[in-house]
Amino acid sequence: MTKDRLYIFDTTLRDGAQTAGIEFSLEDKISIAALLEELGVDYIEGGYPGANPVDTEFFSEKRTRRATFTAFGMTKRAGRSAANDPGVQALLNSRADAACFVAKAWDHQVRVALEISLEDNLDNLRDTVAAAVASGKEALVDCEHFFDGFKANPDYAKACIVTALEAGARWVVLCDTNGGTMPSEIRDIVGQVLAVAPGDRLGIHAHDDTGQAVANTLAAVEAGVRQIQGTLNGIGERCGNANLITIIPTLVLKSAFADRFETSIDVARLERLTSISRAFDDRLNRAPARQAPYVGASAFATKAGIHASALLKDFSTYEHIPPESVGNERSIMVSQQAGKSNLLTALARHGIELAKDDSRLERLLATVKEREARGYSYDGADASFAVLARRVLGTLPDFFQVENYRASVERRHNAQGEEVTVTEAVVKIRVEDELLMSVAEGNGPVNALDLAMRKDLGKYSSRIEDLVLVDFKVRILDGGTGAVTRVLVESRDGTGERWHTIGVSPNIIDASFEALYESITYKLLKTEAAQATTT
Amino acid sequence: MTKDRLYIFDTTLRDGAQTAGIEFSLEDKISIAALLEELGVDYIEGGYPGANPVDTEFFSEKRTRRATFTAFGMTKRAGRSAANDPGVQALLNSRADAACFVAKAWDHQVRVALEISLEDNLDNLRDTVAAAVASGKEALVDCEHFFDGFKANPDYAKACIVTALEAGARWVVLCDTNGGTMPSEIRDIVGQVLAVAPGDRLGIHAHDDTGQAVANTLAAVEAGVRQIQGTLNGIGERCGNANLITIIPTLVLKSAFADRFETSIDVARLERLTSISRAFDDRLNRAPARQAPYVGASAFATKAGIHASALLKDFSTYEHIPPESVGNERSIMVSQQAGKSNLLTALARHGIELAKDDSRLERLLATVKEREARGYSYDGADASFAVLARRVLGTLPDFFQVENYRASVERRHNAQGEEVTVTEAVVKIRVEDELLMSVAEGNGPVNALDLAMRKDLGKYSSRIEDLVLVDFKVRILDGGTGAVTRVLVESRDGTGERWHTIGVSPNIIDASFEALYESITYKLLKTEAAQATTT
Repeated sequence: MTKDRLYIFDTTLRDGAQTAGIEFSLEDKISIAALLEELGVDYIEGGYPGANPVDTEFFSEKRTRRATFTAFGMTKRAGRSAANDPGVQALLNSRADAACFVAKAWDHQVRVALEISLEDNLDNLRDTVAAAVASGKEALVDCEHFFDGFKANPDYAKACIVTALEAGARWVVLCDTNGGTMPSEIRDIVGQVLAVAPGDRLGIHAHDDTGQAVANTLAAVEAGVRQIQGTLNGIGERCGNANLITIIPTLVLKSAFADRFETSIDVARLERLTSISRAFDDRLNRAPARQAPYVGASAFATKAGIHASALLKDFSTYEHIPPESVGNERSIMVSQQAGKSNLLTALARHGIELAKDDSRLERLLATVKEREARGYSYDGADASFAVLARRVLGTLPDFFQVENYRASVERRHNAQGEEVTVTEAVVKIRVEDELLMSVAEGNGPVNALDLAMRKDLGKYSSRIEDLVLVDFKVRILDGGTGAVTRVLVESRDGTGERWHTIGVSPNIIDASFEALYESITYKLLKTEAAQATTT
Repeated sequence: MTKDRLYIFDTTLRDGAQTAGIEFSLEDKISIAALLEELGVDYIEGGYPGANPVDTEFFSEKRTRRATFTAFGMTKRAGRSAANDPGVQALLNSRADAACFVAKAWDHQVRVALEISLEDNLDNLRDTVAAAVASGKEALVDCEHFFDGFKANPDYAKACIVTALEAGARWVVLCDTNGGTMPSEIRDIVGQVLAVAPGDRLGIHAHDDTGQAVANTLAAVEAGVRQIQGTLNGIGERCGNANLITIIPTLVLKSAFADRFETSIDVARLERLTSISRAFDDRLNRAPARQAPYVGASAFATKAGIHASALLKDFSTYEHIPPESVGNERSIMVSQQAGKSNLLTALARHGIELAKDDSRLERLLATVKEREARGYSYDGADASFAVLARRVLGTLPDFFQVENYRASVERRHNAQGEEVTVTEAVVKIRVEDELLMSVAEGNGPVNALDLAMRKDLGKYSSRIEDLVLVDFKVRILDGGTGAVTRVLVESRDGTGERWHTIGVSPNIIDASFEALYESITYKLLKTEAAQATTT
């Protein structure tokens, strides 16, 4: 049996930008687009060119290699042509491959919010889609409030679809804009829509206001639509959009869907799912949801109790899918075997080859687990893992030690009566027998400490010249009295390589110091290898 | 038309106790049971008497007034009678009104995990239920792995149901134990089960492993079951159980259910929903999920943008239910795209009424935009917005000024040669004509500064006693040389209110100081209002 193709349309960078507390920079958008390409979605809706400077700049270049790069915007206003509508032209002149126009499909909304006639609304839709197609772009139409509109006036809602398709739109997307529709209603209404439009021209855009965005999306697919809109980790306005990180594994792994449909995401890409989901949360500087379906840290965790002993007899009983199929892991330590083989893979990535029965492997595993229990997380701090591994394995060169340090911040009024803040750090470093003291001012204690530490590393100084601190993130774990601070530092050097190090301590400065120290150590390890090769 | 009665069965205290990181004390259980009675559920499953001391003690008294107080346990073991099974007797001798026994309904599981014959399993079930009924308790049976079992051997799964009902069980609950079943499968299988059991003797117990626990529960209700099992805020093993806080408002407010069914929860109780959900998170010492359906802080939040202007014209357009029906509230966030009307709404939420043409509105708008361009983001920092608004409007009382401060961190070796880090902060604060100097040590410079600042606020000290710093987040904006640090602080006080403040500076300490300072100011503003009312 040939399978129907489902298309995944990601709107993390557009509708996801409506999330409370989220504001994407250009750098964020570029980095998230790369994650989406890694995941393998078909469409990346990148924003709304013309609406704000970040989005306009994002669309000044083609940002995808594989996915259809899609710009969002409004249909033209009444009383002017598409050619004279600056909003529409901003989309058509962008470097997007496709343009997705939002159009109201609820008669009440057209009258109340747009204050135009129902016919004018259809004209605007028709002319806008035609202009996009004429400019060589693929056209899509988001029918806003489609389901509420259909309940109020099914003929008008259907007329919007037919108008868009006749004007040349590749897809018309049925949007449950306020998120209040039930799966049974979705099924019923999609069934009626199929009388005027084929399912392979229809999409679904669901919101999670009743906790059913995923179910609504899947119900629409079962009923006939073939394009799915959603976001990474379900970010979005109010309760969020349909969560693609939850939907994709269901489509790929569950026979109810996998037997009937195929997507652009194969089982190999699916194994990257957990890491992509967590990298996205890292970018947003928020803690991953532990209970998230498929990718959460607890998704395959079983507490010792009535289930654990049964689980030991037969994993399939309490796991609806194998955790490794989505790159996640079981969190009962059943055998050290699973842990060891992961560790060997990670070590090999850093060029460390170890035999399976090397006793140091056991020690490293125990050390990693003990540190993760204290708040370290080596998932996002590969360079710290490399440093830790060499330390435990006894192969870390003794580059330098920081004997002590001091950082101070003082805010006071200067002689002119202006408020000034002065930050200073002093470090005492030992490189072999040499004792080096450095002092530096910075625009914060971490910056001052970083500058002081790198000011003079004796014979190593030349090897860290091109080291740049790119990003610095802080998270408080377990708020309350037992709180510890986790600092993640991202570094880069002249080769373009980026690496991440981690520090954990109740004291933010100590945690920062640890991450900075490990970043320098990692850089020295890198150049050590280079030096070894050149000699 | 008479409506069918749906019964709500809460298992927060039993299955919810399987959540990673959650362990209930007796006090927790008593307090959560009170919340559940306030909500108005029909059954409270309180735990597993005999399995651990807390649960045994919890069941040594009758803990509910209205709900059926339910104990959980296993069916008797093979080779002994129910009267001689200590596990069964612990339930029957407890003060529970009802006993819910778990029984395996998947032939594979009976053979592999229990290692008994299929017939022995049915005998154990029959005898256990009969013993419970004979002892005067209402009997329920949880059919573990029911859906997987039905797919493998429908006759055996159905035999479990029939055996339980014939032995006198009031309810048989169909459990999707590993959470992997799709709504369409639930519908189909429940339909087949109705051939051997009436819907008003059947329950549904769903898990969220594919993000569809709510949809699976509602699909089962549509298909015919009349009892719903779930937990507060969806806590539970792995990805959690079906979230009653999400399901209940859908049953009460959405016509697809409200027209056909009635529950024990009326519209008046429903207005307590948000407060019950948040009180439960407080009890667990975790931050409420902002995006939670119905009750999340963002559930009715709209960012200024394409939707906000339409929202102002007609709330029903972008809100699937009135927020006050679940005790939640609308929030329109202030952000870069903010216009005057959004600002007025935001001000009104803080009790500040301003005329549309007040010239100060223009000034406030300009200030917000200018500060957001520098890295502030008021949509996640409502309390800072309130403080800023009053400052610009000239209505911020002159509580206190920090004349200067100093924070220092020093890592050195102590007399014993151990590495120690000492952190200290000194602040000089002016309260009217009084100059107050305080010094404090902390486990980091921000903590030390916070403690020093709150140590002595003169006449305001008593008003900030119940202020607690709950969370602290740091983000570097635009990494590189022009980087600024954004700090978000979450605070809470004795009333349970949580608020967020923001600080932005190239210096992390200055940014933290600003957010802390504004949090204290907001708390003083709050108590100012209270003082005004009491005088």
